[in-house]
Amino acid sequence: MAKAAIIGAAGFTGAELTRLCLSHPGLEPVLVTSDSDAGASVADVYPALAGTDLVFAPHESAASAGADIYFLAVPHTTAMDMAPALLESGARVVDLSADFRLKDATVFERWYGKPHSAPHLLDEAVYGLPELSREGIAEARLVACPGCYPTAALLAAAPALWAGLARPSVVVDAKSGVSGAGRKATSTTHHCMADESIEPYGAGTHRHTPEIAAGLAAAAGVAGDDVTLTFVPHLAPMKRGILATVYLPAEDGVTLTDAFDAYRERYSGEPFITVHRPPRLPATREVWGSNRAHIGFAMDEASRMLIVACAIDNLVKGAAGQAVQCANIMFGMDETAGLGIAGPAV
Amino acid sequence: MAKAAIIGAAGFTGAELTRLCLSHPGLEPVLVTSDSDAGASVADVYPALAGTDLVFAPHESAASAGADIYFLAVPHTTAMDMAPALLESGARVVDLSADFRLKDATVFERWYGKPHSAPHLLDEAVYGLPELSREGIAEARLVACPGCYPTAALLAAAPALWAGLARPSVVVDAKSGVSGAGRKATSTTHHCMADESIEPYGAGTHRHTPEIAAGLAAAAGVAGDDVTLTFVPHLAPMKRGILATVYLPAEDGVTLTDAFDAYRERYSGEPFITVHRPPRLPATREVWGSNRAHIGFAMDEASRMLIVACAIDNLVKGAAGQAVQCANIMFGMDETAGLGIAGPAV
Amino acid sequence: MAKAAIIGAAGFTGAELTRLCLSHPGLEPVLVTSDSDAGASVADVYPALAGTDLVFAPHESAASAGADIYFLAVPHTTAMDMAPALLESGARVVDLSADFRLKDATVFERWYGKPHSAPHLLDEAVYGLPELSREGIAEARLVACPGCYPTAALLAAAPALWAGLARPSVVVDAKSGVSGAGRKATSTTHHCMADESIEPYGAGTHRHTPEIAAGLAAAAGVAGDDVTLTFVPHLAPMKRGILATVYLPAEDGVTLTDAFDAYRERYSGEPFITVHRPPRLPATREVWGSNRAHIGFAMDEASRMLIVACAIDNLVKGAAGQAVQCANIMFGMDETAGLGIAGPAV
Amino acid sequence: MAKAAIIGAAGFTGAELTRLCLSHPGLEPVLVTSDSDAGASVADVYPALAGTDLVFAPHESAASAGADIYFLAVPHTTAMDMAPALLESGARVVDLSADFRLKDATVFERWYGKPHSAPHLLDEAVYGLPELSREGIAEARLVACPGCYPTAALLAAAPALWAGLARPSVVVDAKSGVSGAGRKATSTTHHCMADESIEPYGAGTHRHTPEIAAGLAAAAGVAGDDVTLTFVPHLAPMKRGILATVYLPAEDGVTLTDAFDAYRERYSGEPFITVHRPPRLPATREVWGSNRAHIGFAMDEASRMLIVACAIDNLVKGAAGQAVQCANIMFGMDETAGLGIAGPAV
Repeated sequence: MAKAAIIGAAGFTGAELTRLCLSHPGLEPVLVTSDSDAGASVADVYPALAGTDLVFAPHESAASAGADIYFLAVPHTTAMDMAPALLESGARVVDLSADFRLKDATVFERWYGKPHSAPHLLDEAVYGLPELSREGIAEARLVACPGCYPTAALLAAAPALWAGLARPSVVVDAKSGVSGAGRKATSTTHHCMADESIEPYGAGTHRHTPEIAAGLAAAAGVAGDDVTLTFVPHLAPMKRGILATVYLPAEDGVTLTDAFDAYRERYSGEPFITVHRPPRLPATREVWGSNRAHIGFAMDEASRMLIVACAIDNLVKGAAGQAVQCANIMFGMDETAGLGIAGPAV
Repeated sequence: MAKAAIIGAAGFTGAELTRLCLSHPGLEPVLVTSDSDAGASVADVYPALAGTDLVFAPHESAASAGADIYFLAVPHTTAMDMAPALLESGARVVDLSADFRLKDATVFERWYGKPHSAPHLLDEAVYGLPELSREGIAEARLVACPGCYPTAALLAAAPALWAGLARPSVVVDAKSGVSGAGRKATSTTHHCMADESIEPYGAGTHRHTPEIAAGLAAAAGVAGDDVTLTFVPHLAPMKRGILATVYLPAEDGVTLTDAFDAYRERYSGEPFITVHRPPRLPATREVWGSNRAHIGFAMDEASRMLIVACAIDNLVKGAAGQAVQCANIMFGMDETAGLGIAGPAV
Repeated sequence: MAKAAIIGAAGFTGAELTRLCLSHPGLEPVLVTSDSDAGASVADVYPALAGTDLVFAPHESAASAGADIYFLAVPHTTAMDMAPALLESGARVVDLSADFRLKDATVFERWYGKPHSAPHLLDEAVYGLPELSREGIAEARLVACPGCYPTAALLAAAPALWAGLARPSVVVDAKSGVSGAGRKATSTTHHCMADESIEPYGAGTHRHTPEIAAGLAAAAGVAGDDVTLTFVPHLAPMKRGILATVYLPAEDGVTLTDAFDAYRERYSGEPFITVHRPPRLPATREVWGSNRAHIGFAMDEASRMLIVACAIDNLVKGAAGQAVQCANIMFGMDETAGLGIAGPAV
Repeated sequence: MAKAAIIGAAGFTGAELTRLCLSHPGLEPVLVTSDSDAGASVADVYPALAGTDLVFAPHESAASAGADIYFLAVPHTTAMDMAPALLESGARVVDLSADFRLKDATVFERWYGKPHSAPHLLDEAVYGLPELSREGIAEARLVACPGCYPTAALLAAAPALWAGLARPSVVVDAKSGVSGAGRKATSTTHHCMADESIEPYGAGTHRHTPEIAAGLAAAAGVAGDDVTLTFVPHLAPMKRGILATVYLPAEDGVTLTDAFDAYRERYSGEPFITVHRPPRLPATREVWGSNRAHIGFAMDEASRMLIVACAIDNLVKGAAGQAVQCANIMFGMDETAGLGIAGPAV
């Protein structure tokens, strides 16, 4: 059993990570931290986890935890201050924040408003989206888990760009459940605002934009400047789930069958991915509570637009589940260990 | 008081129309029909309307109702069989179905799978979207009320095209509440499928596509072939509301201020429209239960995409409210009569 | 037109009251106040009310508003400090807080934790539940609007007690939408806590308990000590609505028909009340957005329990609508003025 | 690995059972049947289960399946026709329908409208609510899984009656998610009816009534006639979850501490049960997707009513999870095998 520490365990992502570790056959949660909830029992803060005796310790306990792996579920610009010391202790680090996802410290500073405090680790950090780039994860000391929107957008768009089926001029219209906004109570997360309403936010300014753009460029094999991305996230009236609806201008002559073949080939053997056949677009209920990503597409023949949609659970495949999937790879365990194969059927 | 008959009053749209007529100062509902619920009281079928004594009559009662205006809230391909006789009786007709929205009977047949049975009326029918083309409605014998998606999409996109701010190469990513799927109980409308999930459907094949395309062409002042439209509707986990997020490639040099000025000018004096200042994208909760349309936009400078979103209540501004608004114009009444100015604040 | 001031207009109840006044034929909102939102426009804070130009003024503006009627939608223990001066100005006051609902200042202090600052007004204040005690409201200077739970519970229970059909040993199991918890963002109102979950709270300790008990005693014609009340409110995953399910031990020989006759008689002619025939228990969707109260019952023959349920919209009949209904009575207007007869059909 | 067959696997309960068996360490699903969906793949009907290759076979395949255990997730009055032959094959049967829950065939016929076709098995059948009566399950050939409402109601009420803390005069006000109404699309399960509304149904007539009454009598150690039960179920606007709020008249002198001690003792060591300390009433979100039952209570000192609430997931602890728990006991496996300890934290 590898000893796992979850830093920032009282947020929604951290709590989901705690749940996954508690039933994981190869990870043992030895430390869960939270500054705001230090001293409280996990079971009191999250009664769904009533079966555990874990108690939140303050973040500073991380230093002496002696864990084999640290999951950082803290806010961005906090993780980059924590990672170096943890790595020096010989442990591995899976960072769920944005701090090590971008390779360019300048771009990081532009989008996150603060100079990067550990720029020397940016090159070393491996982007943890196994279905698109599994290589490197196994040996990595530091894995940067993708954002929830980039996970869905890139799983949807990358194969088409890789296969040269579409031009890298992409519209990503994404819809997220409210848990993506975090545990903090705000007017945005108030049930009377969130329920029964859908709204766009952060159009053109959301911080996941450069991460998606970098992934698209990599998939298309072009420079970042050759990618055109318009990304508009929406808040949907549900607790969990992300649906990314991606619009890709098809190259001449490309057919729906071409697309289907490319996706099936790209994702062949992936335990968490389903490409719908016959082609149909997925619903987020299909992946609720699981680490699955369901992908489907349609071709609008009149506009020659390839439409690809990907549904994930933002807290699982979009965060905690993907972190565990990466840890499984890092420790040489079965990639599906502790992740099950299915969420609730209904 | 003008005598109003609502044909097909037991569906969601018909019921909402009945509610609006019941409290309208100038319309008196003298007949509500439903073949499936004939003989049942409106109050039993829709307990929210407990204050009325109306009873559903069969559709055939329409012929002898002697109404001044007939609202047709029947399925498409049914309305076209009913309208001619009603018009011959000297009454006015507001059709909420799709039957008189398209000018070309061939296009109608292609999308609705049936030859048009009253093609001679297609030219005469006036498209009832007052904010975009109020002229003609006042004198019309036959008004074709727009579909719910076209209402939202065109209110969002038309001013930008009119003003030449963007090219007519448009992506419409629309999200609708479940009431848009109608009253019939299906696996799609089952709460356990619809709740807590969002999904695309009918990508590239939804029947509102040609109606939106025609409206975009008219706004841009170009032939239909010069418009490129990709339309993907989504089912969102809520009862009511449509949000159309529209992506328009901005012409060189166009600024957010240009867009704002164009929309403010275009919609100046419109009682039901709000263009958000400072620019922000609207939420459907803002228009729940009202005939309002709230419009906002953002400019993605990197991709030079103008993003315009419009929120309406699909059953009100997207159907029953718009029908009443048209009737108000047809009878020379205050355009807001019976429609109020606001839905519930929360 | 009577001039109306809404003190505390930025809360959910105040906003709903503002909406109702804006379309009321006999009330003109001349002042809306909020200390926290002073200076902001109503339309910015509540975009659903985009049609108004009203701006929130600080509470202190109330003194010089010269209104004919003041609606106090401020927290309990605040209203009692405001009411005396407003009454002295010659205006009428409808208080939506709890401050003038209980006749006994000692009981008030026990439940609200603070001595009453205007005990001399407790006798004068008239309880504003017209369907149970319309007398006194017309002449009242000060009306105490009932709480949302007491409105539903008493409309359900009172006729049976009045008619002697049941013993005053009552269980009230009530379910409320989240708007009842107010506008403040808390962990309780967070969408991820409130959505898809139902939970009891305040069992035996909710402050509406003495108000319900007093109403039951009055209906039964007994002393307060002779009433046994168990009241458990629940938070239900919806924005609006209260359902009170009330359990009343039937007297020997009482039949469902007896109950039906008693309720029909008691509520004969009431414009906002429907007693379901044939007997069936109501759903909150029937009254969403309206001032209606729908009441139904069932008799469990084996346990001889009369079960009565009442559904209201907590923000309308449970608060703002009832306040307007009282104001209508106070000004001699039609009791339904500005309140419509129906909410959305779906 | 024991071979498991799920008869009636296409309903919500059957699908959840299939999911649980698919990841169970000791059960191997060798057959899933459905007459309506025969020939369809499980993954097509329930995309959440995309990881499996199982295909629905017709019910008649059950005879030749050679399974070690048959889970019957078919409608009541169907299971009683299937069980005898399956038992004769030497297999064990866990019936999730109502057919073997009541010991008296006359009572069965009165509530289910049909004579019992296998009355000789009623005595042998063991009621499968392990936390209240684990004895007998291990050796049973035929286990009758409790209904979802009885599970919640009895887990809440039984310890108080056993310990003599309250009189067996019980009101059970229960709230269920919509999945309890089954997969069939009806006007009741239509999202536009179910969403944002709560309603009582089946007051005094719900078929779970005699099952609850029998369990209460057993707990109290009295004859059935000495129990007074009023049971009113409600449909709550959520997919899953049952909350039973139970009202029990406390015996003189009984304190909240007495209650707490009795419940803690009764449920000591139970892996799926949490009794909240300090006392507070549970929310259904605490048990979403898990086999847990969370129980809490409050004492209303004025009315001397002990209020106990129990939250379960109706499809798991209320059906499929409990069936697996019983199977675990029957096969001598760890009682928690395949059931995990926690559902999603949020």
